[in-house]
Amino acid sequence: MSTTELLRSNKSKKPKALSSDDRHTLNPTRFLSMARKSSLIKQALATVLFVVLLYATLNTFLSPAAVSPALPSFSSSSSSPPYDAVINVVSRDNDPNSNSNPKPVVKVYLYDLPTRFTYGIIEQHSLARGGHPAGDVSSLKYPGHQHMGEWYLFKDLLKPESDRVGSPVARVLDPDEADFFYVPFFSSLSLIVNTNRQAAGSEERPAYSDEENQVALVEWLEAQEYWKRNNGRDHVIMASDPNALYKVLDSVKNAVLLVCDFGRLKADQGSLVKDVIVPYSHRINTYNGDISVENRNTLLFFMGNRFRKEGGKIRDLLFQLLENEEDVIVKHGTQSRESRRAATHGMHTSKFCLNPAGDTPSACRLFDSIVSLCVPVVISDSIELPFEDVIDYRKIAIFVESNTALKPGFLVSMLREITSERILEYQKEMNEVKHYFQYGVPNGTVNEIWRHIAQKLPFIKLSINRDKRLVKRDMNVPDCSCVCSNQTGIITSL
Amino acid sequence: MSTTELLRSNKSKKPKALSSDDRHTLNPTRFLSMARKSSLIKQALATVLFVVLLYATLNTFLSPAAVSPALPSFSSSSSSPPYDAVINVVSRDNDPNSNSNPKPVVKVYLYDLPTRFTYGIIEQHSLARGGHPAGDVSSLKYPGHQHMGEWYLFKDLLKPESDRVGSPVARVLDPDEADFFYVPFFSSLSLIVNTNRQAAGSEERPAYSDEENQVALVEWLEAQEYWKRNNGRDHVIMASDPNALYKVLDSVKNAVLLVCDFGRLKADQGSLVKDVIVPYSHRINTYNGDISVENRNTLLFFMGNRFRKEGGKIRDLLFQLLENEEDVIVKHGTQSRESRRAATHGMHTSKFCLNPAGDTPSACRLFDSIVSLCVPVVISDSIELPFEDVIDYRKIAIFVESNTALKPGFLVSMLREITSERILEYQKEMNEVKHYFQYGVPNGTVNEIWRHIAQKLPFIKLSINRDKRLVKRDMNVPDCSCVCSNQTGIITSL
Repeated sequence: MSTTELLRSNKSKKPKALSSDDRHTLNPTRFLSMARKSSLIKQALATVLFVVLLYATLNTFLSPAAVSPALPSFSSSSSSPPYDAVINVVSRDNDPNSNSNPKPVVKVYLYDLPTRFTYGIIEQHSLARGGHPAGDVSSLKYPGHQHMGEWYLFKDLLKPESDRVGSPVARVLDPDEADFFYVPFFSSLSLIVNTNRQAAGSEERPAYSDEENQVALVEWLEAQEYWKRNNGRDHVIMASDPNALYKVLDSVKNAVLLVCDFGRLKADQGSLVKDVIVPYSHRINTYNGDISVENRNTLLFFMGNRFRKEGGKIRDLLFQLLENEEDVIVKHGTQSRESRRAATHGMHTSKFCLNPAGDTPSACRLFDSIVSLCVPVVISDSIELPFEDVIDYRKIAIFVESNTALKPGFLVSMLREITSERILEYQKEMNEVKHYFQYGVPNGTVNEIWRHIAQKLPFIKLSINRDKRLVKRDMNVPDCSCVCSNQTGIITSL
Repeated sequence: MSTTELLRSNKSKKPKALSSDDRHTLNPTRFLSMARKSSLIKQALATVLFVVLLYATLNTFLSPAAVSPALPSFSSSSSSPPYDAVINVVSRDNDPNSNSNPKPVVKVYLYDLPTRFTYGIIEQHSLARGGHPAGDVSSLKYPGHQHMGEWYLFKDLLKPESDRVGSPVARVLDPDEADFFYVPFFSSLSLIVNTNRQAAGSEERPAYSDEENQVALVEWLEAQEYWKRNNGRDHVIMASDPNALYKVLDSVKNAVLLVCDFGRLKADQGSLVKDVIVPYSHRINTYNGDISVENRNTLLFFMGNRFRKEGGKIRDLLFQLLENEEDVIVKHGTQSRESRRAATHGMHTSKFCLNPAGDTPSACRLFDSIVSLCVPVVISDSIELPFEDVIDYRKIAIFVESNTALKPGFLVSMLREITSERILEYQKEMNEVKHYFQYGVPNGTVNEIWRHIAQKLPFIKLSINRDKRLVKRDMNVPDCSCVCSNQTGIITSL
């Protein structure tokens, strides 16, 4: 079944648009002044108030927030209000009592990509591992891996709108209504179809080429009316793996890219202004126990590849420093079910988890640490972090500048001095924000990514309108809008 | 009366905070299922529905949207939805029936600045013009000029919250609750207190110094706890006149600056990402007639200073090209009541109004043209435009690249070819958006500026959190997030 067919099957469930009357609120002040004019209404009012109070009381106990720990909650110790509610999260019910302002959500159109860019990649991944060609590719299961966020976003948009209530974005089936165009290319899965990039094919089955598929995607996009209209500025493409889309980045750089870091992107390809930093999909099971240090006897834990390129060279140096410390576990390990089990045990029984840079600044381990309530010790000077407007990472992690972290004895003695009370505070905060890093929960990562995409809309609309009226200019430097960091910098956040 | 006293006098009107119960909505589905369980409630329900229907009916006719033409409307020919409603404009009534999501607005704290930065400047302006010292400076009338937006924003925040319903921001009296800190320095008035900057004082009254006051403001700010906390990133300062604050820009560059263009700001001082482009306060009366070309016999009109520095040198060249054209009026004139009257007449009776660059790219004339329904012909290659995310200026103005505009005969022959129908379309669009350029109307420029400030909040919060956890890095280039224009450029938008 193609995406179109899936879309059509959901079409009938599209919610009815609100009529203008539906959009008006019951304003209690005016309500009261009207009621004074009629004794009939006076009587009614008493009943109304009773019902309202009864409802409010019941609602307090029955509201989803009270029963579902997965709903977003805000860091209790944060002095800031949950300001991200500024971006309208609209419940698209037809409630005539809802707020008087019309509340359009941000609207997303899901491209009906040719299968080769979506389910076809799942099939290729399966074939490359000895699987058989599938009859109905859409029945194939997307294989679990750390960049499977692309699958969750695609699936989210395919759900009937009635199951998407509370989402910051609404899917629209008419591209003319759309604010954003989602391009559901499985760019990260495409990258790992072959166990190495130049896998040999056979006569009956030529080798899959990620590069060819990237190029084909750009050709397809550049033929689309809506892509051409705004040079892709209102398009959203996930490139979660730092190497995803590497061949065509210059062609898609105007789009809102959903990335894990900017390690492989040039300054004109990716930026915090237009792009959204997304979390890896954690591979370690969530720790569901209470916050506690009692069963966490290991001081510091790391398991992963000891040898990495670029910023990741620090890993081997850290191994040399740490491998003989008594209460520290640092183990070389590669991805496997077995090592995941060992890592789960390690992360669930350690106070701190080491998060050094990998080939790029980000790594899945940070999110594994957070859902394990194992305080991350981040040693990656150029790391970018998801949802940093709503999460103050100093409350859930310790940042250490690389050169400082390499001073003999520094790390372990610093960590040993941290009291249990302080560790419990970190754990409490991680517990509060961990839903942001859970793709699979109802109001978790997926909604948060949409919310952040939605927040980009004013600036994107401005860029689109401005680009179109700008006249030709002789400029020595590119016409850019920037915001720069203070560049002061800390040695450690502790 | 100082700002504090004014604030205190409004304090009693502060709306009661919503209790958690108040925030729950009457969800009609659950309401109905509960009602089925009780016949008492069944009776009540009928009454409730009657009252709701009565209210909804009355509300449709009595809602502000139905009576006030000044409320925001969106360009009718635009295919985009009014997406800026994505940013929650919350009515802060205590309606228990309002939407189920808690809806905090963006909160602004108004600094209680020493009088020398606010009313004291009005007094100095008066004294420099032969006025007498005022007993109560807060009774002084702010003098009308093209950068008096700073007065409207200040006044708006001083209003009781009950008069601010519908505003995208709520004033808070506790700085700990604030998202933003508004610094109501009259920076533009300060600049024009003296008729020239080095005005001579007398023994009893030393000359006012704008520069000294700018420096004093920064000293005052840098002593404030909340300024220091985030290096001013969450502070908002209006610098509407392109020369306002010129002495201290480096000290306030982290703040959200409300500016007319970036003509006097360096790339690291101002940017579309963190700042808000605000309109000049128009000095020509709004044209209240119908859209029409009948009484507009002049093809192109301009009145203003013929001689300007920098980009404004083009004015003299345009005068030479245009002054002998039959249906074109270009007149040299300086600001005076008399010339304002002549300009009003000219703009209300012309089809097109010339908008060349001045000393900086922007000029008041653009907003005078729009409220006059005189189609602006913008010849200013580096102009920035207010609210460009919600306004597609190609629909209300014609942009011409400077070198092209200077080709003999080009401008007038281009304009003469534009049909009356097309001019009416421009006028219709101007009519739709002109409320954005009216500071004095209930839902005009002031609310739109706040809405745009509110939209910056996610990125500002991100910058604040990120800055604090960034470790020291050796970087060759500053750590900046940028979005650049396509740099393709048009010759004319016609």
